Amino acid sequence: MDNFSFYNPTRIEFGKGKEQLAGQILAEHGIKKVLLTYGSERIKRDGLFATISKSLDKHGIAFVECGGIVSNPLLSKVREAITVAREHKVEAVLAVGGGSVLDSSKAIAAGTLYQGDVWDLFLRKAPVEAALPVFAVLTLAATGSEMNAGAVVTNEVTKEKFAIQSPHTFPKVSIVNPALMQTVSRDYLVYSAADIIAHSIEGYFTATVQPKIQSRLVESVINTVIETTDALLADPLDYNARAEFAWAATLALNGVTYAGTAGFGYPNHMIEHSLSALFNVPHGAGLSVVMPAWMKWYHGRNPSQFERFAKQVFGLATAEQGIAALEQWFDKIGTPTRLSQLGITAADLPAILDNLQGNAQWFGLAEIYTQDVLAEILKAAL
Amino acid sequence: MDNFSFYNPTRIEFGKGKEQLAGQILAEHGIKKVLLTYGSERIKRDGLFATISKSLDKHGIAFVECGGIVSNPLLSKVREAITVAREHKVEAVLAVGGGSVLDSSKAIAAGTLYQGDVWDLFLRKAPVEAALPVFAVLTLAATGSEMNAGAVVTNEVTKEKFAIQSPHTFPKVSIVNPALMQTVSRDYLVYSAADIIAHSIEGYFTATVQPKIQSRLVESVINTVIETTDALLADPLDYNARAEFAWAATLALNGVTYAGTAGFGYPNHMIEHSLSALFNVPHGAGLSVVMPAWMKWYHGRNPSQFERFAKQVFGLATAEQGIAALEQWFDKIGTPTRLSQLGITAADLPAILDNLQGNAQWFGLAEIYTQDVLAEILKAAL
Repeated sequence: MDNFSFYNPTRIEFGKGKEQLAGQILAEHGIKKVLLTYGSERIKRDGLFATISKSLDKHGIAFVECGGIVSNPLLSKVREAITVAREHKVEAVLAVGGGSVLDSSKAIAAGTLYQGDVWDLFLRKAPVEAALPVFAVLTLAATGSEMNAGAVVTNEVTKEKFAIQSPHTFPKVSIVNPALMQTVSRDYLVYSAADIIAHSIEGYFTATVQPKIQSRLVESVINTVIETTDALLADPLDYNARAEFAWAATLALNGVTYAGTAGFGYPNHMIEHSLSALFNVPHGAGLSVVMPAWMKWYHGRNPSQFERFAKQVFGLATAEQGIAALEQWFDKIGTPTRLSQLGITAADLPAILDNLQGNAQWFGLAEIYTQDVLAEILKAAL
Repeated sequence: MDNFSFYNPTRIEFGKGKEQLAGQILAEHGIKKVLLTYGSERIKRDGLFATISKSLDKHGIAFVECGGIVSNPLLSKVREAITVAREHKVEAVLAVGGGSVLDSSKAIAAGTLYQGDVWDLFLRKAPVEAALPVFAVLTLAATGSEMNAGAVVTNEVTKEKFAIQSPHTFPKVSIVNPALMQTVSRDYLVYSAADIIAHSIEGYFTATVQPKIQSRLVESVINTVIETTDALLADPLDYNARAEFAWAATLALNGVTYAGTAGFGYPNHMIEHSLSALFNVPHGAGLSVVMPAWMKWYHGRNPSQFERFAKQVFGLATAEQGIAALEQWFDKIGTPTRLSQLGITAADLPAILDNLQGNAQWFGLAEIYTQDVLAEILKAAL
């Protein structure tokens, strides 16, 4: 077990009706004016916006709206919101949405207090030294952004999908009401399942130090995701399955399962970031394509852990059987496992490989993931 | 899954050599003068005290010592330390020890800022509204006190063993170096194993709402404890086993495994607290006696979960087999399973039952745990 620091000060308010606490929670933190960020106008149709604005009104908290944040959130939008945040002198950001809204909000929160251009922080030209406090009402469980300090944003001009991470960008409080997720589309449910599994396996398979207790925790998360996804596909209104799925998403990337793990990378995310930066594919859909191909290429480097995965997750004997079972499960639930399903063909590979050069540098994986290796993995995913 | 709030702001600094950071960490928090609490003089003989005092000196932090805290820590000592803390106007408490030192330190931290007598807080006559910041260097992994807000103290006059819990009593930072635990005695290792298992099973078996993901996490903890205890009995210097054991202890009671769980009680702790209040038995030793007897009495109330336990922990089929396997494992590792091993006989039962009346009230379990029920459980443990 490697030395580690664990620190996660985010308070989670989890359960039915918790979104009604938004105003009270902001008031507890002394906030009088907030930037309310969101994605589509759906929250206005389904009543969530009304619930939250009523709660803010009740506690005398003024808010400025910034909607229109898209999946694979864009730098241009972050910059626009920073301008709004500064103009209106907001004291906090309240993100209402899924991972894209949360990630954008963290970037807005950090960018508002940074003198230069916010993209500098993503390029690591400057560290994140301060951020407005971020609060969240989660409407999609997948990225774990509700309880971590990370934020991934796409620069649509340079086609770079990079991240920031800082103790300043932990949400202060995240409200997670699984009932709000009952209207998530079938597609986004299965993409989310793939995303959570991807968060779980990056460390699990690639760490040079992987404590057994952490493998057990990761398997608890993965088994829960598989079981609850199946349950939700059968009955989207199964509250308990929705809740366990959401808590699994949080646990997959809040640091608990990664404590004491060392020497790991995020190769699946590295590859997927190029797919979504270039083709704007849903992150989870890209991951379910990348993972089986990557696993087939990688498993010989860590055979015992792949055997463990096969046994603990699928009750199977060999690494190959475990990988095949995961791919079959992705096929069964309807998340893509082939680039062709994303509309990507062999003709696109050169562009992806080109984009991956920068990504591999950014992720610190350029040594292992040469252009030849990446081409091999991508070809296996066609 | 029940609604829940999760908040745990304690930073964990885990691993080899981390105790050298003590001074730096206190300095980061602006502390200039600290009460250094500890148990026996062992930390002076083994060099830990020297390491920490050197680290404090280096950062210009003055300290006042308060040693002599015993297992099942005493209210009289807490009161004495509060007097010292006030006299010397310390700004924080630095606990160097195991659960007893940490729990005492939280009580000292809260009591120093409370106008009345500290025991009022344990009797719930007043809430904990403030506390000095608490820092810790853990030398024994068992109670989970390093990453939770609870503190259990014994009033040796009234023979009451009660607890406080408040957002103010989370340690700010806890240093957990498993290498410091390599000198823990064989007895205290196995008592600690029993304590961690007890923390794990109270919710697991008694909750009226027990999410399956949480059962999986609890089983991850228990399986790790069993495996690493066996490894440490074979080789006390097995650092990795020591580290996984320590992290399991933290996870068992830092709130992660209890999130979304509802309607549970702490019946095993309730019964054990009377044993240690009256006979000063080691807490973990008391628990390993109580648990099998309690399980035999209780399992019919939650048969499916006991079957799950048998299967997931011991690979066995029935509730009875699982309980027997746990008892046999306790026997094998050498932690007691009978009251007689603690020197307690049938003649002592009336006094225990009498003490348990107040305990059952305090734990909110008086309705189920009548004198008859408690007598039945205790007789089964003779």
